[in-house]
Amino acid sequence: MPIVKIIELIGESPNSWDEAMKNLITEAQQTLRGITRIGVREMDVRLVDDRVDVYRVRAEVSFRVIRS
Amino acid sequence: MPIVKIIELIGESPNSWDEAMKNLITEAQQTLRGITRIGVREMDVRLVDDRVDVYRVRAEVSFRVIRS
Amino acid sequence: MPIVKIIELIGESPNSWDEAMKNLITEAQQTLRGITRIGVREMDVRLVDDRVDVYRVRAEVSFRVIRS
Amino acid sequence: MPIVKIIELIGESPNSWDEAMKNLITEAQQTLRGITRIGVREMDVRLVDDRVDVYRVRAEVSFRVIRS
Amino acid sequence: MPIVKIIELIGESPNSWDEAMKNLITEAQQTLRGITRIGVREMDVRLVDDRVDVYRVRAEVSFRVIRS
Amino acid sequence: MPIVKIIELIGESPNSWDEAMKNLITEAQQTLRGITRIGVREMDVRLVDDRVDVYRVRAEVSFRVIRS
Amino acid sequence: MPIVKIIELIGESPNSWDEAMKNLITEAQQTLRGITRIGVREMDVRLVDDRVDVYRVRAEVSFRVIRS
Amino acid sequence: MPIVKIIELIGESPNSWDEAMKNLITEAQQTLRGITRIGVREMDVRLVDDRVDVYRVRAEVSFRVIRS
Amino acid sequence: MPIVKIIELIGESPNSWDEAMKNLITEAQQTLRGITRIGVREMDVRLVDDRVDVYRVRAEVSFRVIRS
Amino acid sequence: MPIVKIIELIGESPNSWDEAMKNLITEAQQTLRGITRIGVREMDVRLVDDRVDVYRVRAEVSFRVIRS
Amino acid sequence: MPIVKIIELIGESPNSWDEAMKNLITEAQQTLRGITRIGVREMDVRLVDDRVDVYRVRAEVSFRVIRS
Amino acid sequence: MPIVKIIELIGESPNSWDEAMKNLITEAQQTLRGITRIGVREMDVRLVDDRVDVYRVRAEVSFRVIRS
Repeated sequence: MPIVKIIELIGESPNSWDEAMKNLITEAQQTLRGITRIGVREMDVRLVDDRVDVYRVRAEVSFRVIRS
Repeated sequence: MPIVKIIELIGESPNSWDEAMKNLITEAQQTLRGITRIGVREMDVRLVDDRVDVYRVRAEVSFRVIRS
Repeated sequence: MPIVKIIELIGESPNSWDEAMKNLITEAQQTLRGITRIGVREMDVRLVDDRVDVYRVRAEVSFRVIRS
Repeated sequence: MPIVKIIELIGESPNSWDEAMKNLITEAQQTLRGITRIGVREMDVRLVDDRVDVYRVRAEVSFRVIRS
Repeated sequence: MPIVKIIELIGESPNSWDEAMKNLITEAQQTLRGITRIGVREMDVRLVDDRVDVYRVRAEVSFRVIRS
Repeated sequence: MPIVKIIELIGESPNSWDEAMKNLITEAQQTLRGITRIGVREMDVRLVDDRVDVYRVRAEVSFRVIRS
Repeated sequence: MPIVKIIELIGESPNSWDEAMKNLITEAQQTLRGITRIGVREMDVRLVDDRVDVYRVRAEVSFRVIRS
Repeated sequence: MPIVKIIELIGESPNSWDEAMKNLITEAQQTLRGITRIGVREMDVRLVDDRVDVYRVRAEVSFRVIRS
Repeated sequence: MPIVKIIELIGESPNSWDEAMKNLITEAQQTLRGITRIGVREMDVRLVDDRVDVYRVRAEVSFRVIRS
Repeated sequence: MPIVKIIELIGESPNSWDEAMKNLITEAQQTLRGITRIGVREMDVRLVDDRVDVYRVRAEVSFRVIRS
Repeated sequence: MPIVKIIELIGESPNSWDEAMKNLITEAQQTLRGITRIGVREMDVRLVDDRVDVYRVRAEVSFRVIRS
Repeated sequence: MPIVKIIELIGESPNSWDEAMKNLITEAQQTLRGITRIGVREMDVRLVDDRVDVYRVRAEVSFRVIRS
């Protein structure tokens, strides 16, 4: 019987949350097979020296684990 | 005295959350009059065969009910 | 010892949440120095006469307070 | 077998939360039969031009649905 | 574009939560088409005269709305 | 060293939440000494045969316990 | 005026949550009169030496207190 | 572009929550212009020497900030 | 010093939540040693073509990690 | 079958949260047998006349009840 | 009538949460009169280059505002 | 593009939460590179035979993942 595992990741981008999410999806797909859902849990912006440094999206990633 | 009713909908798009939200608003406006607020409650992405299938926005829709 | 203070703001835009967030950041930077983080807490849309009136983003803003 | 359905309403009054709740109950009873519970979820006041405009009570209404 | 709607129901049974959930599913399917998910939100037991009267399951039901 | 204990009660009244709260306070004071705080956690109304049956206030009651 | 009191219990069973809940109800009824509701708050399983040791159900129990 | 700021206040009264809320509104209006919403977050009662000392309402106050 | 790690899994079954939980426990025990607790976080049912497709239990699994 | 009961206490100390927690544990052990867990729910400090008056720890205490 | 205001601060220390909290209290007392309560909301540690950089305590500070 | 991963651990000590947290940090640093934050989620004490057995701190650990 397959099972679903859920992990949490934070995607980042210097430009926008859209790009941060795209980076998160790209990274997740390079290391995980069988992803079924990515759910946003938090969005924030970090600033350094009064300038936006990075957009961040924290998300939970669900994927099927098939034991061979 | 008018009253406000609140329902929950999920808007979907194969392309982005922005479009998912626009679809949700369009659909809500075609069946409901007097909408005053649409508040986001959850955003996620569903994947099929390791590809993004659909962007989803779950939102609560408030609208005035006028009984005649 | 410096300390961090956290306040809550709502940014608005007639066009999109992206622009609402940009307005929030711009306004926050004009009155506050040393901002380190802006975290989204709520996103909604207000409608008037069955049309979208304003996109709103509620966020918490953290900034360092340096007493001289 | 009967089933219970739960919906959310906002009652309003220019004078008080008590009256807002009474309006909510009156309206709910005119359109629904078999209400068993009304539970408060949120209370707020809206102001316009620096004056109280409306007291609001958001509540969930449970009622039995009897299919004939 | 189809849209998903979410409503809340309470299923009941004098015997068990399993049966309460089965009643909820049966009832939901008789009035709704296109159900995609039923998520449990609360489980409780009501007692009358020191005996178990009814097992209750509160759940949210998601279903696709197709406008013709 | 004295310690504070916290218990939960529901006060009821056929007429209003104000009276339900007053009943809760009166009852709590008849069995407990040293109450320091009563905090509201939930307010609802129960209906029977389409009429309001009882107003209910659920609250947590904190009181000092002095062991002799 | 009667009042309702709410306490929290954890029922246990080596076999199932159903049995854990039955044990909780049985125990509660042996020491309390006038129980009106038992609401589930948490369900878990404890393991010892890689075997299931006990199924646990944490629930809140509401009961009427009649002072004579 | 104007922005909305949100602060938290606690209003108090020796007599009732209604009066505590009225005091909170009065005080808020004397120091803030452009208030749009006051939302209740918590209601409690403090007791001293087994008597009710003060009714308290904690609320969040939203107001428009217009920079000149 | 040993440490405890917590991960999240979703167990599934076409027949019941009981079986979904049993599948989750079985799978977890085949890949992890030293499990101490499995706590339920969410239960739902997914439907396809108006039929129940799968019962799902989402749970957090705690287990001791012994570094050699 | 033994059952577990959960109560809430607040421990206090004029010096630190550590001492407040130690006081809570000491007090709990003098009146309860079979305590299995004490879980922190809230930590705060109360001040009087601009000085720290008391450190407080609110915690839930679980203990086994053995009926004879 | 005096009113209570609540703000949020983060205290920091390179050594411990105890010291972070002490810094927070010291700073708060230098700019605010009439503080009545400081409640912890979050505790974390930030690391840089695999070393602990700063202990942080986020807390809400309540203080009386006396208008002259 | 680097990504941040978040996992949950429980640190333990027979003596104090401070030591439990230190154990957690030490263990995390021995298996993970690039830790940026450790945030407390829960603190409790477990007792055996009416004595404190272990202090526990549950925390989420964020660390950068660099794919080569």
